[in-house]
Amino acid sequence: MRNALHQEPWEEIEAILRAGDAGRLKTCFEELSPGETARVISRLREEDRARVLTLLSPEDAAALLEELSHTQAADLIEELSPAQAAAIVNEMPSDEQVDLLGELDAQGAAAILEEMEAEEAEEVRQLSQFPPDTAGGLMITEYLVSPDKFRVADVLDNLRQRREQYAKYDVQYVYITSERDELVGVLRLRDLLLSPRETPVTQIMISKPLKVQTVTTLDDLQHFFDRHPFFGVPVTDEQGRLVGVVRRADVEEAVGDRADRTFLKVSGIVGGEELRSMPLSVRASRRLAWLSINIVLNIIAASVIALYQETLAAVIALAVFLPIVSDMSGNAGNQAVAVSLRELTLGLVKPYELVRVLLKEAGVGIINGLLLGVLLGGVAWAWQGNPYLGFVVGVAMALNTLVSVVLGGTIPLLLRRMHMDPALASGPILTTVTDMCGFFLVLSFATAALPWLAG
Amino acid sequence: MRNALHQEPWEEIEAILRAGDAGRLKTCFEELSPGETARVISRLREEDRARVLTLLSPEDAAALLEELSHTQAADLIEELSPAQAAAIVNEMPSDEQVDLLGELDAQGAAAILEEMEAEEAEEVRQLSQFPPDTAGGLMITEYLVSPDKFRVADVLDNLRQRREQYAKYDVQYVYITSERDELVGVLRLRDLLLSPRETPVTQIMISKPLKVQTVTTLDDLQHFFDRHPFFGVPVTDEQGRLVGVVRRADVEEAVGDRADRTFLKVSGIVGGEELRSMPLSVRASRRLAWLSINIVLNIIAASVIALYQETLAAVIALAVFLPIVSDMSGNAGNQAVAVSLRELTLGLVKPYELVRVLLKEAGVGIINGLLLGVLLGGVAWAWQGNPYLGFVVGVAMALNTLVSVVLGGTIPLLLRRMHMDPALASGPILTTVTDMCGFFLVLSFATAALPWLAG
Repeated sequence: MRNALHQEPWEEIEAILRAGDAGRLKTCFEELSPGETARVISRLREEDRARVLTLLSPEDAAALLEELSHTQAADLIEELSPAQAAAIVNEMPSDEQVDLLGELDAQGAAAILEEMEAEEAEEVRQLSQFPPDTAGGLMITEYLVSPDKFRVADVLDNLRQRREQYAKYDVQYVYITSERDELVGVLRLRDLLLSPRETPVTQIMISKPLKVQTVTTLDDLQHFFDRHPFFGVPVTDEQGRLVGVVRRADVEEAVGDRADRTFLKVSGIVGGEELRSMPLSVRASRRLAWLSINIVLNIIAASVIALYQETLAAVIALAVFLPIVSDMSGNAGNQAVAVSLRELTLGLVKPYELVRVLLKEAGVGIINGLLLGVLLGGVAWAWQGNPYLGFVVGVAMALNTLVSVVLGGTIPLLLRRMHMDPALASGPILTTVTDMCGFFLVLSFATAALPWLAG
Repeated sequence: MRNALHQEPWEEIEAILRAGDAGRLKTCFEELSPGETARVISRLREEDRARVLTLLSPEDAAALLEELSHTQAADLIEELSPAQAAAIVNEMPSDEQVDLLGELDAQGAAAILEEMEAEEAEEVRQLSQFPPDTAGGLMITEYLVSPDKFRVADVLDNLRQRREQYAKYDVQYVYITSERDELVGVLRLRDLLLSPRETPVTQIMISKPLKVQTVTTLDDLQHFFDRHPFFGVPVTDEQGRLVGVVRRADVEEAVGDRADRTFLKVSGIVGGEELRSMPLSVRASRRLAWLSINIVLNIIAASVIALYQETLAAVIALAVFLPIVSDMSGNAGNQAVAVSLRELTLGLVKPYELVRVLLKEAGVGIINGLLLGVLLGGVAWAWQGNPYLGFVVGVAMALNTLVSVVLGGTIPLLLRRMHMDPALASGPILTTVTDMCGFFLVLSFATAALPWLAG
């Protein structure tokens, strides 16, 4: 349990901010146990958050922002003037710059770009043209490059001379280019280390190196790094010119981010990540947007019940089983949705393989539908002492589970074929259809069996 | 659309297997566009899958397995004899060995370990003692180490001599240890490159290097790599002895895996990942295990309706609104669950901060509850022309949304405090409570207002 005398770390930060002690602020964030930084920032008042970034040097502020999620970092940057923000963004690697500015609204991002160094700003503008989950959107432009005429000694001299600049780079390979900037080879640091100074680089480089294009997708990059034990892969444009490097770590991070986004969307958090430090109006309205669509779908589904009011009035016990049948088959269908989303992400299924998924799910749907049907039918029989009620409820449960599981498996593939986002739309569509179908099955069977149910 | 004449790649693989052409099999998998390998493997018949691994050399088979998910790789390995499996596992890096054997049942893993090289097997046994999402569970034991007495020339000579062995390693740093195996420094390849041959390593190494312990958690490792631009971090035991290295890429991969597992669990895929290439009985029974618990909870929740059969019989229109109220507040609560799970993972909230989350969610619950209540109440009024029905339904909807959102936000924190898995249990608990509460609110308000509703 929490100690009442315990001082939360943001209380200390607030005290330092009041004293305006830049040195102590830096030390305090460095000493903060890992993981605490994000929480501390989220608990500061708005004016204090802006003050943290302006009190730190731009370099330290950039390092702080890189520890936070993009959403949280963007929230902080928005509270600064464009000039203050630009000074900090200048200190970040190119892929982080693009990610961060991509979280801001267009106007805010443009204002910051105006204030940045012309060369850096131009680079960000170019990089942000690429879709986020492609090699172009993930690549960095900070890498070592040497002309193919160099010898080992030339490369080493260049390294020594520009040591200061390169210290910030993740130096793993030196990329060798022709006069026309075409990628002709990759030189590993290790081979540079073990070769005589007079060796031409073309002799020890890996020629015809593996590379990707700016349009290569995240999935393909993930499989590339699964297959090859490299730290990075060079990216070329359509003319074969070297334009960037995608690092393994950035690919892994992007894959993790995508899994997070899928989870949030499936749970109905749409339109960007939500943090509880965001304003109430933003949080409530974003959640409401998704709920409003759902309530309309729900009303449509439930209107099926209105069509059978007479049957319901005659056998009021059915009202107990309606939500059970619709909820349970919805649950069973959601399991199939999850498996399909996962197989689509892993590349284990292609959107055109509807029949395969349908057959595979039909098997599970029949087995689990039968078992759930027998269970629920048994409960209905035992409770009301009427075997016919048990039969109606059980058969409806079994059939609706089959329908829901088959639909749950196939809807994500259909949505992907229509270029819609399966993570977002599968759940609401599935729930609406299985609710309608479940209500219909229970009530139409009951209407047909009414003489044996009522009385 | 799929072309009818199109040959799927597994048909080619099947032909090669029948011909028994090891060389062509290797080329074929190498040429397969990235991402296709996993799909192809999943479509082969069981006996063909085993044949793929035995036809390839152990080294090539190991490379193939590393391209697959752990679940899929384990499925393949299970089809081989322990001796065949051991030959392949021998060729993998130590962290992959542990992950793969961890997916097998205890007996299968033990049989393979028996057949492996004694030294490798002992290493796997030791590594598998560590919990999976800790530095001990994620570390590799293939790294470069030099005694602190060495000079630059000694290190370079050692590198050249053992070039063959080291070629498989991710060489980024050389770790410098004392006579008692204590970690005393880290030497970057770059500094080795730029220093005279006679320099003692202690002079150019980074002394007092940052390190983690075997018990360091995945969260802390993630924050460590967010904060420090390293490729790996040395891992020490309690006595400060160097025992392994955790690489950034492995941490990123583990974080992505964890997000995937959360998503699967929330969707009711429990007890391990499901692939449609698994046997039907495994798929159906794993899904059923989770569904059985849910149907019991559902029956308990719906039994509330049974208590109010007289009210329902008098105002049969209520039966239409019962599933809408329970589903919609369930949806609203699930949004709050997703935000809490996310904030727990990011470290933005601590399990003891219940009051903060409760207040934050109460705000959203009141706003969205009111809006959904007005909307649904309006529909009820318009449909039946009875303002009292609208009032009963609307107030129940608003209150139940508030209850569900507050519970959805706080249940994951409570479960974490009780050391239970919030991703797994939050959904079913929330749904059960909000269903019961929703049915109770609608029906008890309706009972109280019965004179104005009936007739």
